Amino acid sequence: MGSKISTHPPSGFRDFFREEASRRERLIQLISEVYRAHGFTPLETPALENLEILQGSGGEENEKLMFKVMKRGEKLAAALKSEDENQIADFGMRFDMTVPLSRVVAHYRGQIQLPWKVYHLGPVWRAERPQKGRFREFVQCDVDIVGAKSIAAELDVLQAVVSAIHSIGATGGFELRVNDRRLIQGLAHHAGLKDEKVNEMAILMDKKDKIAPSDLKAEIAELCGTMPRMIERVLENDFQLADAESLHSEAGHDLKNFIRDLNALQLPLSSVVFDPSLARGLGYYTGLVFELRHSSAGYALGGGGRYDQLIGRFAGQPIPACGFSIGFERLLLLLAESESQTETANSRLFVPVLSEDKRVHVMKICERLRAGGLSVDLYPDQRPLKSQMKFASDLGYQWVLILGEEELQTGKWKLKNFQTSEESLIEEQTLIAQLKNR
Amino acid sequence: MGSKISTHPPSGFRDFFREEASRRERLIQLISEVYRAHGFTPLETPALENLEILQGSGGEENEKLMFKVMKRGEKLAAALKSEDENQIADFGMRFDMTVPLSRVVAHYRGQIQLPWKVYHLGPVWRAERPQKGRFREFVQCDVDIVGAKSIAAELDVLQAVVSAIHSIGATGGFELRVNDRRLIQGLAHHAGLKDEKVNEMAILMDKKDKIAPSDLKAEIAELCGTMPRMIERVLENDFQLADAESLHSEAGHDLKNFIRDLNALQLPLSSVVFDPSLARGLGYYTGLVFELRHSSAGYALGGGGRYDQLIGRFAGQPIPACGFSIGFERLLLLLAESESQTETANSRLFVPVLSEDKRVHVMKICERLRAGGLSVDLYPDQRPLKSQMKFASDLGYQWVLILGEEELQTGKWKLKNFQTSEESLIEEQTLIAQLKNR
Repeated sequence: MGSKISTHPPSGFRDFFREEASRRERLIQLISEVYRAHGFTPLETPALENLEILQGSGGEENEKLMFKVMKRGEKLAAALKSEDENQIADFGMRFDMTVPLSRVVAHYRGQIQLPWKVYHLGPVWRAERPQKGRFREFVQCDVDIVGAKSIAAELDVLQAVVSAIHSIGATGGFELRVNDRRLIQGLAHHAGLKDEKVNEMAILMDKKDKIAPSDLKAEIAELCGTMPRMIERVLENDFQLADAESLHSEAGHDLKNFIRDLNALQLPLSSVVFDPSLARGLGYYTGLVFELRHSSAGYALGGGGRYDQLIGRFAGQPIPACGFSIGFERLLLLLAESESQTETANSRLFVPVLSEDKRVHVMKICERLRAGGLSVDLYPDQRPLKSQMKFASDLGYQWVLILGEEELQTGKWKLKNFQTSEESLIEEQTLIAQLKNR
Repeated sequence: MGSKISTHPPSGFRDFFREEASRRERLIQLISEVYRAHGFTPLETPALENLEILQGSGGEENEKLMFKVMKRGEKLAAALKSEDENQIADFGMRFDMTVPLSRVVAHYRGQIQLPWKVYHLGPVWRAERPQKGRFREFVQCDVDIVGAKSIAAELDVLQAVVSAIHSIGATGGFELRVNDRRLIQGLAHHAGLKDEKVNEMAILMDKKDKIAPSDLKAEIAELCGTMPRMIERVLENDFQLADAESLHSEAGHDLKNFIRDLNALQLPLSSVVFDPSLARGLGYYTGLVFELRHSSAGYALGGGGRYDQLIGRFAGQPIPACGFSIGFERLLLLLAESESQTETANSRLFVPVLSEDKRVHVMKICERLRAGGLSVDLYPDQRPLKSQMKFASDLGYQWVLILGEEELQTGKWKLKNFQTSEESLIEEQTLIAQLKNR
């Protein structure tokens, strides 16, 4: 039975259990609740998509990181024979939630009334090179509005997102950076680039905070053949909303109104900043884009924007949409452990089994207490009281209910406070009322 | 923009949205809550495992149905060059929750105090041949106890499972079938089979309700070389608990006590039945096995048992464990749509935006109402009131809050009941109290 099999999860993947898993589950539920309270309804899509859905979706950088799933049986045999590497896989694991959402809108077009306010939570997979703090499976909490053209949709999305982040205990220090993809396009055109080169410009712009200014300038100069003064001003933070309006009047107009309304909404954000270099890499954005940062984190906590053309790729006709994606794990890193430990141990009770012939009797009492709203644990094996109490103590139970022969007969139960060792006699209904109120 | 890409989810996979997705999310949360109330804590493991973890785990039938994930980059190139089909994949998608749980126990042995009461909810993937009602991605709700030897663990697991099923509104007609894997082994030995043939016998036994009795007898006779009288009695439902005790005294003893205690627990089950033909296919079971059925369904809703050797494969030393897995979708099929629509629309409110220059003001009011505990929706685009009201009506909102110029100035808001068309004037705090109480 000696084992040589590695029990590590696959490189870049993680296991969560006990407190950490409880916390994740609780926070995901909270985020869903907030989205629902804002009128959004859930969407659940498969982990796998047909390869042709994921390929050419405009998420170039993410597409390269796709996990592909091998065909099976005869189809696999035929593909191997063909020696064509691209024939071996038929499915891919989703690398974001936006492409599957777009497929769903196109497929169920007749069943889904627009505008559709939808949230879409779950893991996505990207075959990043494993390194510290970089994971290949992580949870995205997306919220999208499909079928609405005006910035009312962006405002609705942002209000829900900021409210969700606030609800899980993250406070203060949040900065929202805002831009419009049409400005990037305008800058690219201004620099003499053709449409097909716009996305290359966008990807370069996103490097602004990551590489040295001189290197960035060199790369842009190489792409454009020269260094346009207007782009120089963007890189030097000398490009204002007024400049945006002269470069692209619609984009400038939307940006101005969006920032004005966001400020008026008084969301719990420290600042809303126009950042003309913000591009949000993905090729499918067509209008406003945004990114959420926190003063204590060197990375974006999430972002999103308007993608009015992506759904059209599947639907045959353009359907406007915008959305925001929270990186769940990145957000968790921000929360101090203590801050989110909101679940109290007070309503949790441990009940030792003092004699095996009373186990069933005790289990029935436990079930009544649970029906009354308490969380009740018992030791699931035949072991001496001492082992059971050590288990309860290790798991941090504050309350222990002693149900001995006498307690069971009289209906007066012994409730013990593990921390103070105080004991009191208590009846069933009083116990429920007392522990629920704490 | 004309599209030829199929927008179907991959064959055997499904999308869920609107009411159906809401219902799934709500029921999953309810099941988790019940498990927590029974003292179990969550486990979250990756969708992917290293292939060597999934292969040879004793889940033979499921292993054959594994989705395999291709290697990437240079490793893929090398594998393709080697022309060895088995080198192309490095990861597999989990086909059950028990194998990953066992890996986790082995890997974090020092951090996890035993006994460990754990629940493990999520999708699993099996490359079944697509056919009606058969899916390749489905959710399992597992609950396990690791590190406990006695049937106290099985009782604890069953109490939690039956309570969870009950909590989501499934009532009456549930039958639990019980057996012990050691009896199957006893029967196989009695028929002269060697240990390595026991699992073949188990797989045949599981066919009892699926194929004609004469065919089954023929297959068993072929495996055994003859048709042992004792197995004939099992197939003819003429094998009792007393027979079990003579065949394998420990197994008979455990079965007798387990059934006695289950009955004494008075779980909401219609019957607990000893079924000596029940084998629960998977090779990793070592003791008691059980299966939950419902009078109105021709399939098992879930099942489980004791697997005292599986963890040892990874841990190097045996660690006892038992568990139960609910097939979430199978359970949902049992629930009439109406039964589980427990979420009322009463606390959900729709607020039209009567004039765009009031949008931000209205959005701020909506956020206050949400903070007060209401679910509040607004139309996320600039459209006439008529479109907004149609949206609200289509989504089934009962309550509409009218915030016109006058209402905003006086603080007396107009609340309209969509069904009765009744209107009343109401102030903020009264509105919150009134809608929350309904």
